[in-house]
Amino acid sequence: MRAVDPANVAMDDIELEAAAFESYDASPGLLGVNLDRFSKVVKMANKTDLVQLWFDTSTFKLVVYIDGLEFTMACLDPQTIRSEPTLPELDLPAGVTISREALNRGIKAADMVSDHIGIEMVEDEGRLSIDAEGDTDNVRLDLQDDDLQSVTLADARSVFSLDYLKDLVRTMPRGVDVSLRFGSDFPLIMDYEIADGDGHVTRMLAPRIQTD
Amino acid sequence: MRAVDPANVAMDDIELEAAAFESYDASPGLLGVNLDRFSKVVKMANKTDLVQLWFDTSTFKLVVYIDGLEFTMACLDPQTIRSEPTLPELDLPAGVTISREALNRGIKAADMVSDHIGIEMVEDEGRLSIDAEGDTDNVRLDLQDDDLQSVTLADARSVFSLDYLKDLVRTMPRGVDVSLRFGSDFPLIMDYEIADGDGHVTRMLAPRIQTD
Amino acid sequence: MRAVDPANVAMDDIELEAAAFESYDASPGLLGVNLDRFSKVVKMANKTDLVQLWFDTSTFKLVVYIDGLEFTMACLDPQTIRSEPTLPELDLPAGVTISREALNRGIKAADMVSDHIGIEMVEDEGRLSIDAEGDTDNVRLDLQDDDLQSVTLADARSVFSLDYLKDLVRTMPRGVDVSLRFGSDFPLIMDYEIADGDGHVTRMLAPRIQTD
Repeated sequence: MRAVDPANVAMDDIELEAAAFESYDASPGLLGVNLDRFSKVVKMANKTDLVQLWFDTSTFKLVVYIDGLEFTMACLDPQTIRSEPTLPELDLPAGVTISREALNRGIKAADMVSDHIGIEMVEDEGRLSIDAEGDTDNVRLDLQDDDLQSVTLADARSVFSLDYLKDLVRTMPRGVDVSLRFGSDFPLIMDYEIADGDGHVTRMLAPRIQTD
Repeated sequence: MRAVDPANVAMDDIELEAAAFESYDASPGLLGVNLDRFSKVVKMANKTDLVQLWFDTSTFKLVVYIDGLEFTMACLDPQTIRSEPTLPELDLPAGVTISREALNRGIKAADMVSDHIGIEMVEDEGRLSIDAEGDTDNVRLDLQDDDLQSVTLADARSVFSLDYLKDLVRTMPRGVDVSLRFGSDFPLIMDYEIADGDGHVTRMLAPRIQTD
Repeated sequence: MRAVDPANVAMDDIELEAAAFESYDASPGLLGVNLDRFSKVVKMANKTDLVQLWFDTSTFKLVVYIDGLEFTMACLDPQTIRSEPTLPELDLPAGVTISREALNRGIKAADMVSDHIGIEMVEDEGRLSIDAEGDTDNVRLDLQDDDLQSVTLADARSVFSLDYLKDLVRTMPRGVDVSLRFGSDFPLIMDYEIADGDGHVTRMLAPRIQTD
């Protein structure tokens, strides 16, 4: 699954391997789905319910089956969905894995003083900082040593829209470890695993280029 | 207690036997009460508090007493309250008892695609269905066998306002078993017990007559 | 800390002794702080986190440090903050200590019928009452004996704005015992302790003078 926001600022890419499903029988194809509707339908399932998806090739409708409940949803023609932008090859020097909770803490703090947020790595100090600067107030969260895993040290700093980053992190599963890759005035790429490792999520956020 | 909504679409009828009270001493009479106010007052009681109702015949006020708290409420003249419509004798062929939760699940699903909801029994299949039809999407919940108790099989199908049915089911006690009676383009009657069987609730909902 | 509302109806006064802090090193001074901002910053701390406050005398900023998070907040010139009114010497004859919960129960009940609330002590009966009078409905909560501690009996009755009293009691710690002092058409003074007795809060509310 792949989705891009209307302003081309953020992109999500989700891969689920066949092993992530209880049973899987499909031939290659591309389906357009109304996300709001689909999300509400799937939320009807309890934690232990199996959700069955079936594409009816005669009516071109997606049938979702959840313990006696049967939803029949019209699909969207993929041709009519705005296609995602082609991504340039990115060489992102800084890499680090931190907990979603640490990331979220920095976002909550930044949200008090600004509408954008800086992510910075300082190679010499082995430090990752999340910071924000308001008109009169500043905030900075320093993460070091035990907070950081799999660090690829580099000097790098980029600034991002706080609203976008908030939405991206809010919708990550609690307790997940997120691998960040970033550079200086380059996109931020956040990776994490779902479905016991049989699913992989990549979320990309364009930087706010600061003009001094 | 009996109440009807302004549009005459739904009617509630609640009977509490004397045994449902800790102590009961009353002569026959009819009292008009502001429901919103009365409901808020009673909610001041904790789960284990006794609520004492006393009608002061000199002031024509209802006194509610809850552990040191004393509310004095003006009553409404029952003559000024719109009287409920007289109900025609209804011969409703289909009957079944299901859990409030099953009913609620069908309602939640229907709510995604439509503002009305169909309730259908198919005699041959021993099946109760809750369904809804939207412009592009449909939903259907089939209940059979273990989900159904005390079934009186008949072919019957009626359609109801989803908003009304939502409100009626939302205010039923969790975990209660609800007995449904309905026909084809006839009202739906829902019965259940409260107060350990010393109280009985009947809720009636007029059908939406569909003009094809 | 001291704060007064714009209409001069309520005043809060909070004293924290040095013993209320893990460590304390300060010289006398007066600091103006944006309450909304300060409150959000401090809420970033978990229950067991230590919050460190440091005033940077070179930048005139307040630095708040919470487990790796560093907030730098501009201070307000105390001269520019509206100064609190000088309080007349008050001789409040009635005194009693009750639980926040009992006070809150009276407020919730009063809120159903009115936008002001009476607090009354009747010396003869050893009774404290919280009451409210609406257009058609009344409510009264009588507190006696076990509900009352440290009573100084006197005949006294004052009426207060319910909205103000609601806000004051809502922000008291759950389970705290509140000492009330009041008279007839005099302010209400509410005292309670925080920080295991190393902090003391005084909240004062002006009466609504009733013109008959």
